[in-house]
Amino acid sequence: MIRELEGLDLIDDADVLESLSHDDAEWAPYGKAFAAVRPRSTDDVRRVVAACAKRNIPIVTRGAGTGLSGGANAVDGAMIIDLSRMNAIVEIDADNMTATVQPGVINDDLKKAVAEHGLWYPPDPASAPWSTIGGNVSTNAGGLCCLKYGVTRDYVLGLEAVVGGPAGDYGTVVRLGRRTTKGVSGYDLAGLFTGSEGTFGVITEVTVRLRPARREAPRTVVGAFGSVVAAGEAVAAITRAGLLPAALELLDRTCLRAVEDWKHLGLEADAAALLLAQLDSPGRAGDDEATAVAEVFRAAGAMWAEQSTDEVEAEALFAARRLAYPALERLGPVLTEDVCVPRSQVPHMLAAIEEIATRHGTTIATIAHAGDGNLHPLILAPAGDEDAKRAAQAAFDEMLSAAIAVGGTVTGEHGVGLLKRAGMRQELSPAVLAMQLAVKQTLDPLNLFNPTKVVG
Amino acid sequence: MIRELEGLDLIDDADVLESLSHDDAEWAPYGKAFAAVRPRSTDDVRRVVAACAKRNIPIVTRGAGTGLSGGANAVDGAMIIDLSRMNAIVEIDADNMTATVQPGVINDDLKKAVAEHGLWYPPDPASAPWSTIGGNVSTNAGGLCCLKYGVTRDYVLGLEAVVGGPAGDYGTVVRLGRRTTKGVSGYDLAGLFTGSEGTFGVITEVTVRLRPARREAPRTVVGAFGSVVAAGEAVAAITRAGLLPAALELLDRTCLRAVEDWKHLGLEADAAALLLAQLDSPGRAGDDEATAVAEVFRAAGAMWAEQSTDEVEAEALFAARRLAYPALERLGPVLTEDVCVPRSQVPHMLAAIEEIATRHGTTIATIAHAGDGNLHPLILAPAGDEDAKRAAQAAFDEMLSAAIAVGGTVTGEHGVGLLKRAGMRQELSPAVLAMQLAVKQTLDPLNLFNPTKVVG
Repeated sequence: MIRELEGLDLIDDADVLESLSHDDAEWAPYGKAFAAVRPRSTDDVRRVVAACAKRNIPIVTRGAGTGLSGGANAVDGAMIIDLSRMNAIVEIDADNMTATVQPGVINDDLKKAVAEHGLWYPPDPASAPWSTIGGNVSTNAGGLCCLKYGVTRDYVLGLEAVVGGPAGDYGTVVRLGRRTTKGVSGYDLAGLFTGSEGTFGVITEVTVRLRPARREAPRTVVGAFGSVVAAGEAVAAITRAGLLPAALELLDRTCLRAVEDWKHLGLEADAAALLLAQLDSPGRAGDDEATAVAEVFRAAGAMWAEQSTDEVEAEALFAARRLAYPALERLGPVLTEDVCVPRSQVPHMLAAIEEIATRHGTTIATIAHAGDGNLHPLILAPAGDEDAKRAAQAAFDEMLSAAIAVGGTVTGEHGVGLLKRAGMRQELSPAVLAMQLAVKQTLDPLNLFNPTKVVG
Repeated sequence: MIRELEGLDLIDDADVLESLSHDDAEWAPYGKAFAAVRPRSTDDVRRVVAACAKRNIPIVTRGAGTGLSGGANAVDGAMIIDLSRMNAIVEIDADNMTATVQPGVINDDLKKAVAEHGLWYPPDPASAPWSTIGGNVSTNAGGLCCLKYGVTRDYVLGLEAVVGGPAGDYGTVVRLGRRTTKGVSGYDLAGLFTGSEGTFGVITEVTVRLRPARREAPRTVVGAFGSVVAAGEAVAAITRAGLLPAALELLDRTCLRAVEDWKHLGLEADAAALLLAQLDSPGRAGDDEATAVAEVFRAAGAMWAEQSTDEVEAEALFAARRLAYPALERLGPVLTEDVCVPRSQVPHMLAAIEEIATRHGTTIATIAHAGDGNLHPLILAPAGDEDAKRAAQAAFDEMLSAAIAVGGTVTGEHGVGLLKRAGMRQELSPAVLAMQLAVKQTLDPLNLFNPTKVVG
């Protein structure tokens, strides 16, 4: 259909196109794409971008489509670039503790590959078994171990991208950042592209920093609480005690039951909320920290708290955490919140969520990277129930406002996409929004890359 | 002299102005400033920026002036904004492990203040006793513990800046980033400002992330080597062994002798190079790591390697590291290199430095954050010796080329300033340079903020 793209794997089958036209944000709208393409190389991407620029066809790039904000949703007439075939691990450089990968590599596949070299790629969004590094970089994905180990941006050293604008004609290939552990020659454009949700160009290769593999399995401590707010108080107490778990996760009763009903993992589903902590300091220090965390949980009013000595049980608990979202999706369309508040505000925010749910008569299940203050209240609204949908939207908006009011942000890790655009406008000042938009217009003057997303 | 600035602490005394017109990069040129001002508040800065914009007076912002690339050097006719009086610690929020400070706060002062709350601000440039957080943020300063704990950007959560351009009139105050541990609402402008060397605006407040204080003193391991290249091989071997020291520093004989001649710390100055490692895993794990590092040093050919059990001695060794630069400055003008290469290339780069020094007949003393691949060859050229100066410049340029040739960068942590501009142009592609320049022109269309620096 486009002469310059002959030989590429172009898709115009309506059903396939439809499946490639949205991510996992069920509430976000999506348009009718023009076509999709599955490039296999940077050069393929270069050709696609150049051809689209010539015809003013907007480009929407996607990985596995596990996004939860609609960032990968098609706009009308878009060319979808599906990077899932660009899934080669280009190099694992053990001497320099780096890996260079194509964007379609799945997070867990990278983890497994580097583990064979005694190395570890920490960023672990709950979607890690399915989501791609390109998507992780584009959203600056967080995950469970951010508390101690940071987010995706902390691991991106350099990247290759196909861009346009000031760099040259659309289809120009640039390398941003570097392969060294440090470097300050020029502005941090690799960091700027990280989290830009495909609005500046198409990322075609990423070099990430790795860490030495952990030599022991982390300790897991579980605490059961009579209310989510009590669990939130325990989270604040962990910080006050100077403890830094690798992960500190909260699951409320609705999440636990949804997972248990589906997977029958034998979970304790009677408590109002569970806190799961992972401690990974080596040796005796890790044991001491696990003991200290259990004590803080008890002192904060836990019904019970103990270190899980059974690895199978510990694994089941974290599996439950990762499965919470798909388990809830089985119950109906889920509207996903991603607010992040200062840690000390976690109890307040959890109380606010309960109050909002009660007032609107909505079911809100909460999972949270509680130690980071990053909460995922998941609003359930039965399909086809318009009243429920309106109530869900009102609850969603009120939670964003509540987070902003205590110094929080509307999105901790999922990205702005389509669902958080209004919230971002509420959070940031007009001056900052103007700066954001100016940067976008400078780097993508044709507004070709993922238009309407983020500040678009 | 400028009506709107009445009541501000304006300086036009020629001697004071001269002393405020350059940083510690002796080789970098500087111009004749118009005046200097010492604001005490964001509002003072706002007034200065607005008044300068009206008259097209370029603005050069400075902290303590410990920079080593000329980034804070005056251009002709500039208004110098000296932020040393804006040195209040605004808030230490222990519950959220953050601190909010004015830019003139000295790094070590922040460290001491947060230590009283059981917290730790890791970034530790060797200039920490003198340099300011504003300068550290503007250069994305590194330091000794980057190897395990990252650089300044990894700790900047949010900042306040006085800007112009798309945000509004020059003198507009914006808040970039946030106070939460995570957040992806919009592009990472706080990260972009970090390391931008004052070219986008004036940073007037910074919120940094803190960590729990370390509960024990780190272990120090010292290894003495017969050649700098042998020490470099040992650095590469540490990574291969999966060890992650908090710091891994190299000092060559010239540095050791310069410090010893000055401070009489009782240093071993016979070896060609010392490696200093700090291990801070808690408890037994830290002891085990210290033993392992000493073994790797020995296996890599160290003349001797041992854990320093004497805290005074250990402190003297790291004091020597921090004093190396001022000790060498006593011997004459120092031209400071700041290349960063992939860790595996450290031995190669150290050999290249020796070869270049020999060929040009120059004295090059090397200190290095060796574990990061960040080397500081310091070229000594007696004042007034033009031949020596030419040789030093040639050696400087050749080292930059040698670093780029092995995948390195011309500046690991000091910044581009004036001294690394040509090197940056050699390192980055024209397309990337064009993107850098476009971002600068977008955020500072009047080219008011620190013109001629970085990409200017």
